[in-house]
Amino acid sequence: TLTGQGFDVHRLVPDRPLWLCGVEIPFELGLAGHSDADVGLHALTDAILGAIGAGDIGVHFPPTDERWRNVDSAIFLARALEMAGEQGGRLVHVDITIIGERPKIGPHRAAILSRLSQLLGLEPDRIGLKATTTEGLGFTGRGEGLAAQAVATLILRNRS
Amino acid sequence: TLTGQGFDVHRLVPDRPLWLCGVEIPFELGLAGHSDADVGLHALTDAILGAIGAGDIGVHFPPTDERWRNVDSAIFLARALEMAGEQGGRLVHVDITIIGERPKIGPHRAAILSRLSQLLGLEPDRIGLKATTTEGLGFTGRGEGLAAQAVATLILRNRS
Amino acid sequence: TLTGQGFDVHRLVPDRPLWLCGVEIPFELGLAGHSDADVGLHALTDAILGAIGAGDIGVHFPPTDERWRNVDSAIFLARALEMAGEQGGRLVHVDITIIGERPKIGPHRAAILSRLSQLLGLEPDRIGLKATTTEGLGFTGRGEGLAAQAVATLILRNRS
Ligand SMILES: [Mg+2]
Ligand SMILES: [Mg+2]
Ligand SMILES: [Mg+2]
Repeated sequence: TLTGQGFDVHRLVPDRPLWLCGVEIPFELGLAGHSDADVGLHALTDAILGAIGAGDIGVHFPPTDERWRNVDSAIFLARALEMAGEQGGRLVHVDITIIGERPKIGPHRAAILSRLSQLLGLEPDRIGLKATTTEGLGFTGRGEGLAAQAVATLILRNRS
Repeated sequence: TLTGQGFDVHRLVPDRPLWLCGVEIPFELGLAGHSDADVGLHALTDAILGAIGAGDIGVHFPPTDERWRNVDSAIFLARALEMAGEQGGRLVHVDITIIGERPKIGPHRAAILSRLSQLLGLEPDRIGLKATTTEGLGFTGRGEGLAAQAVATLILRNRS
Repeated sequence: TLTGQGFDVHRLVPDRPLWLCGVEIPFELGLAGHSDADVGLHALTDAILGAIGAGDIGVHFPPTDERWRNVDSAIFLARALEMAGEQGGRLVHVDITIIGERPKIGPHRAAILSRLSQLLGLEPDRIGLKATTTEGLGFTGRGEGLAAQAVATLILRNRS
């Protein structure tokens, strides 16, 4: 069993769409970044890359590369899963925490779980999706940005 | 094997008791929140819910519900463990990190481990309890609040 | 399977060397602390201690102890691994995330992986090493300090 973890932060800014865990969320602010800045998928992609010891999202998809401008971060996640498969790894569980005051995740929970299930090839009961505020404290508390944490558990074929 | 993670933050305020990991800690400030605001048990409860893909603490125990006002967060943890059992999961290990400058956890380590062992049904050597400061930086460094992180590992009966 | 996690923060200050994950990194600032303040090795040591339920780095190597002044944090990591071995545990995977704007980890990735592989007795494909910024937000975004998160997975001989 291999368990990787990921952490990511992006700024909330006007005039950007808000993508979270592969779903566009109606909100007056969006996340700034070179790609679609989906902080949830970035943390998750890093967790998978960490599980297989394959660097991080910046190694494979550098923000200096024009190919990744405004791109759907599901592409990064798919490539990380492909790399895991090439190493004999099979994803069995993920758990994601979105950290921020707003928007509320509840109304979008079903849509996000459905999308993640499709992207990851996992049943919804193998996908943790959680949200927490920081009670008004710190940069997430002031609404300056959103953070996300994720863990991903893989098992290796023919190995431990 | 399923490994979930949780993260939580609460504000330190006067005139509230300080509950940490199920133990009341003598301190001049306490944690603000709808329940007893036990940041350690909240992170742990979320880690267990994340491991079984069962939403988060806010889904099951919304702060808008008067039933949970000033309630002992051990109730939330017990319910998450019950849900895990219903899904065929058995908790084998947890690890918690309390993040903040004060109070020091050391003098309360034995009491907390004893309480967690009782609440979780785990031997103390299967319970990680750690504390770290942020060296005066950020909202935890300024003593505005406490944060907690946790991971929980479950195994599934009759499955992987 | 036991999965522990660790988190640590140290301040960036002038006139200190910068040690990260066991490697000295050329940079105009270094990390402040009693030991060499290697935030990566501290998070990793705490993750291993958390996996075996053996307290935290402050319990075993208190900053009030002159023995640990300016000491190489690889000593802490080695002791945690030794304790894990005494409990019948074998480390199978680690994953580390360094959180901060600068320095960039990329140019030092190979050196860090080589050093961690030596310290941990793990093949590089069992070592996740990731870096992320907080996009200018918070204390890491302002360059006041570096944070690190780690997870460590151990298996127990003759047990689950
Ligand atoms: Mg990102
Ligand atoms: Mg809470
Ligand atoms: Mg430290």
